[in-house]
Amino acid sequence: MKVVFHGANASTFYPGFAELLDDQHDLILLDDALTDPADQQAYENADVIIGIKFNGDMPKPAKLKLYQVPGAGYDGIATAELSEDTHLCNCFGHEIAIAEYAMAALLSRHVPLADADQRLRKGDWKYWAGGPSGVRTELGDTTIGILGYGHIGKEIARRAKGFGMTVHAANRSEINDPAVVDQCYALRDFGKMLPHVDVVVNTLPLATGTVGLIDAGAFAHMQAHAVFMNVGRGGVVDEDALYTALKNNQIAHAFIDTWYIYPNAPTAVTQPSKHPFSDLANITMTPHMSGWTHGTIERRKKAMANNINLIAQGQVPINLIAK
Amino acid sequence: MKVVFHGANASTFYPGFAELLDDQHDLILLDDALTDPADQQAYENADVIIGIKFNGDMPKPAKLKLYQVPGAGYDGIATAELSEDTHLCNCFGHEIAIAEYAMAALLSRHVPLADADQRLRKGDWKYWAGGPSGVRTELGDTTIGILGYGHIGKEIARRAKGFGMTVHAANRSEINDPAVVDQCYALRDFGKMLPHVDVVVNTLPLATGTVGLIDAGAFAHMQAHAVFMNVGRGGVVDEDALYTALKNNQIAHAFIDTWYIYPNAPTAVTQPSKHPFSDLANITMTPHMSGWTHGTIERRKKAMANNINLIAQGQVPINLIAK
Repeated sequence: MKVVFHGANASTFYPGFAELLDDQHDLILLDDALTDPADQQAYENADVIIGIKFNGDMPKPAKLKLYQVPGAGYDGIATAELSEDTHLCNCFGHEIAIAEYAMAALLSRHVPLADADQRLRKGDWKYWAGGPSGVRTELGDTTIGILGYGHIGKEIARRAKGFGMTVHAANRSEINDPAVVDQCYALRDFGKMLPHVDVVVNTLPLATGTVGLIDAGAFAHMQAHAVFMNVGRGGVVDEDALYTALKNNQIAHAFIDTWYIYPNAPTAVTQPSKHPFSDLANITMTPHMSGWTHGTIERRKKAMANNINLIAQGQVPINLIAK
Repeated sequence: MKVVFHGANASTFYPGFAELLDDQHDLILLDDALTDPADQQAYENADVIIGIKFNGDMPKPAKLKLYQVPGAGYDGIATAELSEDTHLCNCFGHEIAIAEYAMAALLSRHVPLADADQRLRKGDWKYWAGGPSGVRTELGDTTIGILGYGHIGKEIARRAKGFGMTVHAANRSEINDPAVVDQCYALRDFGKMLPHVDVVVNTLPLATGTVGLIDAGAFAHMQAHAVFMNVGRGGVVDEDALYTALKNNQIAHAFIDTWYIYPNAPTAVTQPSKHPFSDLANITMTPHMSGWTHGTIERRKKAMANNINLIAQGQVPINLIAK
């Protein structure tokens, strides 16, 4: 089969990919733009495309068997434009990385390592045990509220519980994880969860029913000392409401990893929102990095190669979104 | 009874302490110096002293029933100078705080939050998922080796396991915690553990047999990419060997919380070693802060008040080191 790696993101998964396939296939690397006619033809002839962007303006891969997204979010794929014989699949494998990002971020609010280090290098013992000046709080003493209890939500919850945190979660389908989740809510009732938690983490993808779900009303329900984190999709959180909540100190801090504006190329200097979040001190801004580790890449390579092996054998691939 | 809180450290535990006692006692706050004759007399008349420093140069509390250390380490107490009727007790309650410090420190090596934030504020998307420039490693993919499997070692190990880390531990007495510890070593064999782990955490107290235990030979056994952490006592790690190992990049990084020189007063500008650790980039220097949280203070207050209640009833106190 002809397996096209379309664009910079997909190309990340190319090294070592051939060794994971049962049979020999043509692995073809194409750039994002597809301006070269030869590239367009290769795209049109693909049996499998690995990519994150597909729409009606692009060359038509008429005999495409599998469109494989190398990640969870498939909001860049115009599913209606895929032929009816094409399997559309996503993959996960990022949940461990995102959970590590989340716990690192939350712990950083309680353990002032960088400040302590800068001070002690100058002989300043602020935070010294026994002194009153630097008594810390404990993460384990707080309550987390997780929006969306899928792959990501579960891994964050498991680690949070390991630290002794009280865990609340809101999900569309019923949650059945009593060893980890202390209090469950239907997703439509997530507003009832917000006043009871110290940390709110959004893990929801962008989908019908989640666009702008976390709005001004939601921020109004959060506690003044609350920390908000978005590792789902930017669009789940109303852009104006987030900016206003931080600007007006309605909440204490936000860790925002998923955004409203993305660069056209990895090195393009790009502000991630129409609002000047970078002027605010009560936000940690990260560039949609939470899931991006060597471990994620390896897990996704295995999942995608497995799907290509299944397609080659005429079987149904895993994590099928649509056919 | 006359209960003396001796010094700045002990005074931290005074607020709200009376409410934890079954009976009414005289709670007396004395400063560290004990230069005032009235203070000396109050010290001599104490039934209970809460403090971290006791030696033959200090006033003699002849009828002392309990010397209560408000922490784990009692290396500041000259036990031979206490009368034979005095119970010497320590207390714990810091293990949750220290485990949070340890995990925050270890995660900070894998999740570059501060750098990502500084960059994105300028529109720089380094670390963006899909790009090759910022692929992270995962803490969960590494192996931790813990020296000392007491209160602190166990809490660190439990959280490390929750992140998926492989857990090795070396302890004087046998370790029986198969759900958490993958590989156990006798303490005398800890050198055999070192080549197999990515992170080495010392939790050992200063005692006969631990002084300078982690020496040049130990650092030579560690991997070049290893991270070393000391949350036990400074003196367990040979001062010259630690400096040399970092200066020569024998290991990748150290998080050092316990030191060789301490200030005479909380605000005295004091370098924590005879060596210029502050000139090194591969160390995070923190001022013996790892266990110091509101949670620790509350847990210790309860433990110490409980001991005073036991002594008042003529019973044996808990965490008895010597009588």
